Amino acid sequence: MALMRVEAAAGQYQVRIEAGLLERAGRIIGETIGSRRLFVVADEAVWACLGDRLAAGLEGLEWTLLSTPLGEPRKRLATVEELCDRMHRAGADRRSAVLAFGGGIAGDVGGFVAASYMRGIDAVQVPTTLLAQVDASVGGKTGVNLASGKNLVGAFHQPRLVLVDTDSLNTLPEREYRAGLQEVVKHGIIRSGELFAYMERGHSAVTRRDTVAVERMIADSVRIKSEVVRIDEREGGLRRILNFGHTLGHALEAETGYGLLLHGEAVAFGMIAAAKLSELRSRLNAADRERIEETVLSYVSIPSLEGLDARRIAARISGDKKSVGGKARFVLVDRIGSVSEELDPPEDCVVEATQHALQVCSLPAALVV
Amino acid sequence: MALMRVEAAAGQYQVRIEAGLLERAGRIIGETIGSRRLFVVADEAVWACLGDRLAAGLEGLEWTLLSTPLGEPRKRLATVEELCDRMHRAGADRRSAVLAFGGGIAGDVGGFVAASYMRGIDAVQVPTTLLAQVDASVGGKTGVNLASGKNLVGAFHQPRLVLVDTDSLNTLPEREYRAGLQEVVKHGIIRSGELFAYMERGHSAVTRRDTVAVERMIADSVRIKSEVVRIDEREGGLRRILNFGHTLGHALEAETGYGLLLHGEAVAFGMIAAAKLSELRSRLNAADRERIEETVLSYVSIPSLEGLDARRIAARISGDKKSVGGKARFVLVDRIGSVSEELDPPEDCVVEATQHALQVCSLPAALVV
Repeated sequence: MALMRVEAAAGQYQVRIEAGLLERAGRIIGETIGSRRLFVVADEAVWACLGDRLAAGLEGLEWTLLSTPLGEPRKRLATVEELCDRMHRAGADRRSAVLAFGGGIAGDVGGFVAASYMRGIDAVQVPTTLLAQVDASVGGKTGVNLASGKNLVGAFHQPRLVLVDTDSLNTLPEREYRAGLQEVVKHGIIRSGELFAYMERGHSAVTRRDTVAVERMIADSVRIKSEVVRIDEREGGLRRILNFGHTLGHALEAETGYGLLLHGEAVAFGMIAAAKLSELRSRLNAADRERIEETVLSYVSIPSLEGLDARRIAARISGDKKSVGGKARFVLVDRIGSVSEELDPPEDCVVEATQHALQVCSLPAALVV
Repeated sequence: MALMRVEAAAGQYQVRIEAGLLERAGRIIGETIGSRRLFVVADEAVWACLGDRLAAGLEGLEWTLLSTPLGEPRKRLATVEELCDRMHRAGADRRSAVLAFGGGIAGDVGGFVAASYMRGIDAVQVPTTLLAQVDASVGGKTGVNLASGKNLVGAFHQPRLVLVDTDSLNTLPEREYRAGLQEVVKHGIIRSGELFAYMERGHSAVTRRDTVAVERMIADSVRIKSEVVRIDEREGGLRRILNFGHTLGHALEAETGYGLLLHGEAVAFGMIAAAKLSELRSRLNAADRERIEETVLSYVSIPSLEGLDARRIAARISGDKKSVGGKARFVLVDRIGSVSEELDPPEDCVVEATQHALQVCSLPAALVV
C-alpha cells in the first residue's frame, strides 16, 4: 500500500495505491471529503467489468450512476453536456462531487464535468487502466477533443482524492497494459534513472503484473509526475518534460487517424524518435539511445506502420498545441533520467529521427529484445 | 475617464471606463498584454452596429473576427465548440487571446471559450451593454446554459483587461439600458447608500444617458463588485450578496420561460420581492422598502405578469443553483447599503413577498413614481 500527497495550488490531495481499494472506496471518500452526493461518471464497459466492486464499496453513501460509453469518439463537449444535464436533473448541487471511473477518457471527461458543472465541484478520480493510473489521474488536466484536434477544450482541475486499485488491472487487456507501461518508462527517462533501470531488469515481474512491481511502478510514476506538477502546475516550464515522446507521438496518432494505435503505443514511437533526435543533436550517446529503444520495445508491439511517410509526420508538428508561434518544442534526452527542451530543431534531423523510429518499430520484436 | 484595478487570485487586471475606447482598443491591449493574436468573439448584431469602430481600433494588430449570433438560445456548449473549432482552424495557440465583444452573453461565452481553449488562454472583455459593463465584465464568471437550467456549465476565469466604452451605450435600445440600470441600483442597495441615493435623485441625468452619470454608475458598480469579488472570488461567502434580487428573479425567469423578461427586469422584480421579504422578516423598515420599490420602478417597466402564481414561483427556489442541500438562500436588506443572508426563510413569507412583487410590478408606473 502506498499513500502519496500531491501539492497543488488549490490544495493538497491524496493518492492511494492499494489492492482491493474499490471495495473500500466509500469509507475513504467519506473520511477525505466528507459526506457528499456522488455522481459516478463511469465508462460503460468498465462499469460492466468492475461496477459491482465499486458499488459494494459505495454502499451507505448517496450516489448516482452516470454510465455512458467513453471511447475516443465520445470524448466531446456533447458528452459533457449530456452528463451535466443528467446530473442537474438528478439534483446535483455545488456540494456534490463527481467520481470519474474508468480509463483516461473517463478521467478527462469526468474531470472536465467536475471542473465545469456550476463552475467547479469536487472530483474523485478512480482510474482503472495502467495508463490512467500512472499518468492522467495526477496533474489536474481535464478536457475533451474538438473535431479539429485532440484535448483542445478543457480545464486544470485538481481532484480531491485519487484511488488506484491495483486489482483493477487484473482484467485489463494485455495490449492496454503494455501501452500503459510506456508512460512508466517515460517517467524513468525524464526524471529517474533508477525507475528506468528497474523497467530494464524487472521485465518478467512487470509483464506478469506482479503486485509489488505494479505498485512500485505506479507509486514511482505518481511521485515523479506530482513533483513535476507541483513545481509547474500550469505547464509554463518544467511540466512540459512530461510531453517527452508526445510531440511525434501525437503527430503519428494524427497521421494514422487515431484508430490504429493506442496512445501508449504512439508515445513509444515518439520516445524512440525523440531519443534518436537527442542523439542526432549530440545530447545523448548511442548506447543510452539503444537502451531506451530496447526497453521501450520490450514492452510493446507497435502495429505495422508500413507505408507511412516520415516527412508528413514531421510536418504535423507545427499544428501541435505544444507549439508556440509556429515553433516546435521537443523534449530531448541529455542522459537517462534527465531531459531538456529544444525549440525548433532542424527539420532534417526531425525527419531522420522519425524515419529511424518508423524503421525500428517495424522490426520484428524478436530482433530487438 | 476612470481606471480601476481589480485584484483576483490569478493577478491584477485593469478596468478602463472612457468614451471612445473602441477606437483606441488596440494600443491599450498592446500595452497591457503585449502583442498577441486576438480572436474577437463578437455578437453578430453588436458587430453590425459597432464593429467598424472596434476594427479601426484594432488596426495594426493581428486579429481574427469570429462573429456569431449570441442570443440566449445560443449560450450553449455547441456554440463554445463551434468557436473553439474556428479558432483552432485559424491557428490559435496558447499565446493567443480572446476578445469578447458584446453584451453579457458574448462575455459569458467568449470568457468560457478563453477559459477552456487549450485549458485556458487570456481574455479581454469589451462589454457593450450597460448590464455587461456594470456586472458581467468583472468577477470572472463565465459559462453557458444547459437545456435544464441557466449558467450551469462554466468556469471562473478572470480577464486580463476590461475596456468599457461608454459611447457604445448610445446605440443601446432603451429597454436594455433600463434593465441594465437595475444592477446599478442593486449595487447601491447591497453596498453603497450613496450610490443608491444618487440613483434616486439623479433620475433625469441617468435616463438621458448623460456621460458623467453613466461613467459614475459604471465606475461605482465596478468598484463595488470588484471589492466584493476580491474578498470572495469563488462565492464561498460575501460574493453571494451580489445575488441580491436574483433568487426570486431567476425563479421568475424560469417561470416565464426566459422569453418574456430581460434579466435586469427579472432582477427588478426579485429586488422588490427581496425588499418586501426583508420587511416581513423585521430587517428593513417600511420607508426604506418603499424607497427601494420606487427607485427600482422609476427605471423599469416590467412586462405584464398577470396570471402568474406566487406559490409556483416561490416553489422554484429550491431548484436554484444557489440553494445548498435543498435550503434556499436569500440575500435580505438590513438597511439601504447593507445586506446579509438568510437561510430558508418561512415559505409563507416568501410567497407573500412574491405576491407583493407581482402586485407592485403590475401597477401602472405612474402610480408608483
